[in-house]
Amino acid sequence: MPKIDLHARLKSEITNVDQAMRDDLQALVSKDLIPSNLLEVLEHALYNGGKRIRPLLCILTARLCSTGKKEISPLAIAFEYLHVATLLHDDVIDHADTRRGRPAANKVFGLTPAILAGDFLHARSMFLVGTLGGKRCLDLICSATGAMVAGEFLQISNVHNLNQSEKDYFSVINGKTALFIGAVCETGGIFAGADNNKIEALKLYGTNLGLAFQIQDDILDYLGDSAKTGKTVGNDFYEGKMTLPLIHALETANKQENNFLLGLLKGQKSERITKIDDAREIIRKNGGFEYAEQLAEKLVDKGIASLSVFASEQNRETLGILTGLAHYAISRDK
Amino acid sequence: MPKIDLHARLKSEITNVDQAMRDDLQALVSKDLIPSNLLEVLEHALYNGGKRIRPLLCILTARLCSTGKKEISPLAIAFEYLHVATLLHDDVIDHADTRRGRPAANKVFGLTPAILAGDFLHARSMFLVGTLGGKRCLDLICSATGAMVAGEFLQISNVHNLNQSEKDYFSVINGKTALFIGAVCETGGIFAGADNNKIEALKLYGTNLGLAFQIQDDILDYLGDSAKTGKTVGNDFYEGKMTLPLIHALETANKQENNFLLGLLKGQKSERITKIDDAREIIRKNGGFEYAEQLAEKLVDKGIASLSVFASEQNRETLGILTGLAHYAISRDK
Repeated sequence: MPKIDLHARLKSEITNVDQAMRDDLQALVSKDLIPSNLLEVLEHALYNGGKRIRPLLCILTARLCSTGKKEISPLAIAFEYLHVATLLHDDVIDHADTRRGRPAANKVFGLTPAILAGDFLHARSMFLVGTLGGKRCLDLICSATGAMVAGEFLQISNVHNLNQSEKDYFSVINGKTALFIGAVCETGGIFAGADNNKIEALKLYGTNLGLAFQIQDDILDYLGDSAKTGKTVGNDFYEGKMTLPLIHALETANKQENNFLLGLLKGQKSERITKIDDAREIIRKNGGFEYAEQLAEKLVDKGIASLSVFASEQNRETLGILTGLAHYAISRDK
Repeated sequence: MPKIDLHARLKSEITNVDQAMRDDLQALVSKDLIPSNLLEVLEHALYNGGKRIRPLLCILTARLCSTGKKEISPLAIAFEYLHVATLLHDDVIDHADTRRGRPAANKVFGLTPAILAGDFLHARSMFLVGTLGGKRCLDLICSATGAMVAGEFLQISNVHNLNQSEKDYFSVINGKTALFIGAVCETGGIFAGADNNKIEALKLYGTNLGLAFQIQDDILDYLGDSAKTGKTVGNDFYEGKMTLPLIHALETANKQENNFLLGLLKGQKSERITKIDDAREIIRKNGGFEYAEQLAEKLVDKGIASLSVFASEQNRETLGILTGLAHYAISRDK
């Protein structure tokens, strides 16, 4: 697969998204709807090196379906808002110190501004989706938000279940990540007036990309370079979250290795930090990371294949970028 | 003003609201969209003796405008969801131990479930308003949510401003409370297909009721019985939040009293607890509470007066209840 420089190819789209967010916030400021101390929190959270994957997916999927005359950026930014709203609340929940290598909003401004700014972006996002995208898009995005929360609760209830299956894992990441990315891509199609067949194809692309993206996230949690990911290595294991590499390893490991991993998961969190290298080695030896990587690749291939209905000379470039984005999801190191 | 037993008069409406919420949650549970541990948090937060003021206002204002054949409860519950979502986040922010005399969700279930359950209700609320009420209602309620957050930020930025005016205070409570109650009443009218004149009258009723409601809240913060309000007395003063009784007292107090109050507000929080009785006495002596009560009464009268466009034999009972609710807002002791 030839690597393409996505950032360079998408530079003007990213600039458009950033500008659309600035315009939207500025319009609210000029109507006295955002006090200056709220604006400061919003800008800190929104402009911190985010990859803008969700708005880009919305813009690109819409482009596959239309001549692109309708300006979709004001709708597409809703998905960055919603994403950043969940990041703000996640960082409060995790007592995170940093986000993408910079101090997290909850550390800079405190708990109250971080929670409230998340609520603000949440409401603004729903407003933009409902008024610019219509009822069908609102339904999608509200359902996806509900599923994100439900996925988190499922993960919480799974923490004490050491007998998790791949199916349990996929239930969690489907809700936590994939449905939202799927909804973003569906919205692109709906906005562009695509038929249901095409909207379904975009949904498939998005959900498979989302699943692969999350699997890669879970692999990086063990194998990533914290200087690049901006996250503590081994955090999922520390928190007792069983992700695909671990679940697969437990299925194939020998009794002694199994007892070692399960003993750590049943025991004290502090012990898990000191033994993270041993745990990682057992997972690697039992093909946990390899298996997860291969599964993520299959999902990416499936997602890309679903886009075949859009094959045309006119769509060649956009399809190339969407294919590149899907491969990026599993090749990224941050 | 003859007192009416609102709870008895509204019993069947309250039962309807409670049932509509149960039906809505049950429908989601049956589609596997709410895991059992999330349901537990939602039920704890939703069924804890809430007065259901917001859905009731939506139902009653719609009744003023129509023959009431369309079932509004499935939409009206959206406003209880949104209200409870803000309570969940407020309790996290305030590290509250109790809510209406029972342990707060953040204490029972922890920070994570409380924040996430709030997000879930938020999204579900927006979905119901957008799909059952339409774009105009979604716009109203998203704007009101944004204004609630903006009001909180305004209040935060005001904490270090000891020179606050009544106007500053009204900017805060307009955003924090009044716009939302106004939006609820407007939604009732929009749902019932009322003309813009009537919708405007309902908005006026709601915003004035909301302002009065918040003033009463701020009076009770000083004068309430914590056994009834379920809140710590003097909390606003402790947090350095300047509300109407205090702002008015500072305007009329003599230099010595002023220095005493301002000294406490500039000083340590802990000192404010020990001197709360003295502070309250100075506010009382300078007519702070009386002034706030009178202003709240005027607002209630203004709100009720705006309903005169609905005067008819058919509306007599509903108008009586809405009048009673407005008076309740300022006569309540909890």
